[in-house]
Amino acid sequence: MKKPMFRTVAVIGTGVIGRSWIQVFARAGCRVKVFDSDAEVLAGAIDWFEGDLRDLRRHGLIKKKEVKARRERVVACEALADALAGVQYVQESLPESVEIKNLAYREIDALLGAKAIVGSSTSALDMTDLAQGVAGGRRFIVAHPVNPPHLIPVVEVLPGVATDPKVTAKTVTFLREVGQTPVVMKRYAVGFILNRMQAALVREAVDLVASGVASVDAVDVAVRDGLGLRWAFMGPFGVANTNADQGVREYFTRFRKDYHALWDSLSTTVRFDDELVERLGRETDEMMAAPYERQRQWRDRMLPMIAGVKAMVPLERDQKPSKARRHKAKTRSQTKSKRRA
Amino acid sequence: MKKPMFRTVAVIGTGVIGRSWIQVFARAGCRVKVFDSDAEVLAGAIDWFEGDLRDLRRHGLIKKKEVKARRERVVACEALADALAGVQYVQESLPESVEIKNLAYREIDALLGAKAIVGSSTSALDMTDLAQGVAGGRRFIVAHPVNPPHLIPVVEVLPGVATDPKVTAKTVTFLREVGQTPVVMKRYAVGFILNRMQAALVREAVDLVASGVASVDAVDVAVRDGLGLRWAFMGPFGVANTNADQGVREYFTRFRKDYHALWDSLSTTVRFDDELVERLGRETDEMMAAPYERQRQWRDRMLPMIAGVKAMVPLERDQKPSKARRHKAKTRSQTKSKRRA
Repeated sequence: MKKPMFRTVAVIGTGVIGRSWIQVFARAGCRVKVFDSDAEVLAGAIDWFEGDLRDLRRHGLIKKKEVKARRERVVACEALADALAGVQYVQESLPESVEIKNLAYREIDALLGAKAIVGSSTSALDMTDLAQGVAGGRRFIVAHPVNPPHLIPVVEVLPGVATDPKVTAKTVTFLREVGQTPVVMKRYAVGFILNRMQAALVREAVDLVASGVASVDAVDVAVRDGLGLRWAFMGPFGVANTNADQGVREYFTRFRKDYHALWDSLSTTVRFDDELVERLGRETDEMMAAPYERQRQWRDRMLPMIAGVKAMVPLERDQKPSKARRHKAKTRSQTKSKRRA
Repeated sequence: MKKPMFRTVAVIGTGVIGRSWIQVFARAGCRVKVFDSDAEVLAGAIDWFEGDLRDLRRHGLIKKKEVKARRERVVACEALADALAGVQYVQESLPESVEIKNLAYREIDALLGAKAIVGSSTSALDMTDLAQGVAGGRRFIVAHPVNPPHLIPVVEVLPGVATDPKVTAKTVTFLREVGQTPVVMKRYAVGFILNRMQAALVREAVDLVASGVASVDAVDVAVRDGLGLRWAFMGPFGVANTNADQGVREYFTRFRKDYHALWDSLSTTVRFDDELVERLGRETDEMMAAPYERQRQWRDRMLPMIAGVKAMVPLERDQKPSKARRHKAKTRSQTKSKRRA
């Protein structure tokens, strides 16, 4: 792997999401300075990181030398100022509160070197609110991962109103370099992209059970042995594109009326109440029939295997660039010439 | 693979879905009698089946002997009566029209042996309507696959009001024996289970693009490098169960308010119009950058690889049977003893 553009980074806030970011950056070769205001949480994150390295070693996924190298890249810091000294990028994973994050941003902004960027793991908040009144607001940006980020590559990137477009571009490049897949949102929406789509599917799944159409098991099997097999390597538009001889245009034109009718019939009223949640819990326990911890370990073994299969057989894309790409390529080469000149 | 309970089956209607069923049954060792009222469509289906066998052979996925065996199991029939003679199961994949299917069912019912079952590939219609006035309505049942059924195992099973519960049980067993994953619906809902959940996600995906929040590419990446990685082996309830230390109960209780707020914010008004469909088509073409045919070939290579990974590392489930399963096990062993006695 090519060395990432930012060699030293800070991970601030080390709960379940923050600790997983340690592995992302250490794996990519960055020096990682780690801080949490709760010393116990910080120690727990380092323990988790060490345990994850041992698991990777035990499964033969990394060599002994690599374990040592990654371990040496990670430093737990006792003070925020220590953690921020000399870093070029900060991944912030503090609690989901505008007040807490805004206060922390003022402190981070004052301590941080002039050029460093701060990405926030927030899954719901708007950077325009989070960076309100922060002097260096231009360098703050949302970089929301999926749990766990060291195993699921997507990161939703969303600039705030004050964010410098160069900060957006650099964040995207850096996240790619450390092995993540950034997707840039054009504007804020509650829940961003991914959680909105997940919530839409989950609402219908919950309603199918609540209204007595199907069991938890039937709903889950329909996804994991049906929809999910395609979605592991193609999104909804890729799937539609392969469902008709002439792609998306033919598919959405032919099934336009069916989609509209189906959309109008979907649930909009289902709500979680204690009884429903208990029933979903009971049926899910019956279906999975394994301790929660073993289910999570299984998930964490499956995810890299699915990713591995995808890397083995990529879609062979056309070499001939489209109009849009030709234009971009031209702009890039012009920029290069200017630099060379 | 154990020999399936029904040794001779008929595939009636051989469009894209019907022809794929030929491969499902031939692969499982059944004798497959194939019929379509359009001789050209019938010939096309046999051509497709032969081509698929050649592809499997070329990729080293089956041996020469297996190609020969599967080919010998399949017989194209010139008349419906020939196709139905001596079969124990019929998979019907005729056009999606109550009138066409109801008329065909009367004919099939009259020609078919007394004990044979008819499963319908319908993706939307209710068996209660389809079998209206058919004398042997008790043996007709919905068995709706996902495209393409020889690569995606899920089959939605839905009895009509007249369907014999024994027919439901036998259909489920048989579909499992031929390598599919049946899920039984408790009652009819427009679009069944799978297409309802897909439509819910697609609506939000389309709205994210239409309302300017994200590009087609961003939406698809959020699914294929995010949500879809988990959904390839866990459904929405399995995912929720691994997202909190104490599973579904803790997860849906802790995020209850967030889910309700997100649900209330999801799109309910987006509609396909010509301009939107053209835009989705253009952005999807730009993203995929490959001919439609190559995209489908790639999909058909990826699907068995994802399934293969899943088979390699199954979740290790508890041996101690739950109450419900203990009860069933007891019933089964009693049945066995009776048979032995």
